[in-house]
Amino acid sequence: MSLIATPQSMTFEAPLPLQSGASIRGYSLSYETYGTLNADKSNAVLICHALNASHHVAGVYADQPHNTGWWDNMIGPGKSLDTDRFFVIGVNNLGSCFGSTGPMHVNPDTGRVYGADFPVVTVEDWVNAQARLLDALGIEQLAAVMGGSLGGMQALSWTLQYPERVKHAVVVASAPNLNAENIAFNEVARRAIVTDPDFHNGHFYAQGVVPKRGLRIARMIGHITYLSDDVMNEKFGRELRQAVTNNATGYKYSTQEVEFQIESYLRYQGDKFSEYFDANTYLLITRALDYFDPARAFGGDLSKALSRASCQFLLVSFSTDWRFSPARSREMVKALLDNRRDVSYAEIDAPHGHDAFLLDDARYLNVVRSYFDNMATALNEGVQA
Amino acid sequence: MSLIATPQSMTFEAPLPLQSGASIRGYSLSYETYGTLNADKSNAVLICHALNASHHVAGVYADQPHNTGWWDNMIGPGKSLDTDRFFVIGVNNLGSCFGSTGPMHVNPDTGRVYGADFPVVTVEDWVNAQARLLDALGIEQLAAVMGGSLGGMQALSWTLQYPERVKHAVVVASAPNLNAENIAFNEVARRAIVTDPDFHNGHFYAQGVVPKRGLRIARMIGHITYLSDDVMNEKFGRELRQAVTNNATGYKYSTQEVEFQIESYLRYQGDKFSEYFDANTYLLITRALDYFDPARAFGGDLSKALSRASCQFLLVSFSTDWRFSPARSREMVKALLDNRRDVSYAEIDAPHGHDAFLLDDARYLNVVRSYFDNMATALNEGVQA
Repeated sequence: MSLIATPQSMTFEAPLPLQSGASIRGYSLSYETYGTLNADKSNAVLICHALNASHHVAGVYADQPHNTGWWDNMIGPGKSLDTDRFFVIGVNNLGSCFGSTGPMHVNPDTGRVYGADFPVVTVEDWVNAQARLLDALGIEQLAAVMGGSLGGMQALSWTLQYPERVKHAVVVASAPNLNAENIAFNEVARRAIVTDPDFHNGHFYAQGVVPKRGLRIARMIGHITYLSDDVMNEKFGRELRQAVTNNATGYKYSTQEVEFQIESYLRYQGDKFSEYFDANTYLLITRALDYFDPARAFGGDLSKALSRASCQFLLVSFSTDWRFSPARSREMVKALLDNRRDVSYAEIDAPHGHDAFLLDDARYLNVVRSYFDNMATALNEGVQA
Repeated sequence: MSLIATPQSMTFEAPLPLQSGASIRGYSLSYETYGTLNADKSNAVLICHALNASHHVAGVYADQPHNTGWWDNMIGPGKSLDTDRFFVIGVNNLGSCFGSTGPMHVNPDTGRVYGADFPVVTVEDWVNAQARLLDALGIEQLAAVMGGSLGGMQALSWTLQYPERVKHAVVVASAPNLNAENIAFNEVARRAIVTDPDFHNGHFYAQGVVPKRGLRIARMIGHITYLSDDVMNEKFGRELRQAVTNNATGYKYSTQEVEFQIESYLRYQGDKFSEYFDANTYLLITRALDYFDPARAFGGDLSKALSRASCQFLLVSFSTDWRFSPARSREMVKALLDNRRDVSYAEIDAPHGHDAFLLDDARYLNVVRSYFDNMATALNEGVQA
């Protein structure tokens, strides 16, 4: 029996001040919850999502039995994050395109669709918005905040913005900021979108078009960085999609047709993505990634930046992740240890690259399971005490 | 005193059969030579170029004192490849856009500009075309063939297609084929070009437009893969182009403006490239890269494939090159050693990534110098004998 999820929405009338100096009002956040909040509201776990994900973290919808949450292998009854013991909250971020207020919605101040005028949102802004949602749900303190990749950045930021509201942070396949190469890939993807003639300076909704060319390119670039070199070679190698028989090599000798399986895979991923993802959201989310840098206000000193954190940490990285390499997680571990924080760290030897954080890997899932098991035990002892 | 180079051109009327089964006739090759061919024509060195290079390998033009050849730090009087001792030949490949016949030229069979109908050319085809040029120059055997990256693939292919015509091959920062990740990056770049509305299925010349958007994206992607993560961080890091003063972070909070230096650098490189590089050439050359795979005809067995080579080899790779990593060079070294070939191999600990093969690195330049010094000594002994 699958967990049945029910999407919910909450509207916030009061303006949310944003890091840019702008603010946004009258916005909604889509969210889902799984499991039951206990009497003292001490078992809540907030899940933060990465670029292409949403509040639909676990389970399926009653009327969509194949629409499975993006972290369903991790979260559910009896799973690593056990919804029989924890009350899990998934929330779609502001500016995203899966239900929460985003660029395709109407700006209540102007009566027009936001488009490219949607305010720039940061990881810190998302955390503030999430905190308001927790306020409304009556949750004062999280048992844990958890996320992978950009979601891990939000989890880390929670421990700095609201240290008293977080008991544990689980930060998976993440980094304390983007390096130049990460920013470079984001920039190429953004340029592909912005220079697509169908982008219309971000106001393409009114034109009845979508900058699909740009979105396809953006997604193809993304996919390359999500996978390891090794897993790409293993999955695709130099295999041809369909060898022809009129050449000894099997090549079609064409510059535009698909020759190799990897090309076919990337084109498919690009096409699929361009059908549902919003171009303005892509710009906003990659910029939030670029901007995140808690050490910035401390002259680049990550140890000083993380001194505000007071919770316990689990960090996980994956050996072949070249987007957010283990070295980036180790920077965070070191900075936390500099502050004598309680940190567990697992570096999982996984072949899949950055994508590993979403995949089934027994060692990874067991590390997270153990961490939450200990947390659950402590929670129960707290209740008995 | 700089070496003064003089571009030359040679036209070939006879059809050149191509690997695809097509052929091309009435084509020209642009080339340059430096130094003097000795009496027994035994001191010729052919230089093969990579994606964005040409026959202008060394020196400057008399009327363009700042137009320096792309491998001028390597090749010239008294340099690692010493044009006082060797007769060096640079040749622009068929299908390129720097003088030799390419997609922007007229197809003599139709009287129309080739555009996207330019036949697909392979590394093997280029080598055959280069061999015809050597025939015309009266050079039976090369003292050496040398190239970096895609140029290294041509050098390797020379040793397999014309083993008796090559005494030495210098293969720098190259690979025996592209892996899935390499092909993936090429494919994204090609899709960016082909889906640019100004591409017009490759017949954009007649429209008076150039698919600059696609070329920019292609070049930006290329640049990321040419540089190492480390050198990008060192050169650009997270530095802002111009910090603003109305935010504590210095960020402009904009999704489209340049924030980071790395963005500015990439946009500049993309813009510059789109001004002079031909879009059809980009497709052709990346496809030649994709297709190169001498082991293919031997069931993937590189040792068997390289058994045809009989010359001596110098291979060079660079520690931070993730486009053509040292592991790829080691594959070639192993395959040559399996065949008991005479191979020297240098793995240079350089921070610059793939671009290192074009840069000044004393250890690298000295390795090549020693190799050619030994060759020159042997040549002189041959003359004396």
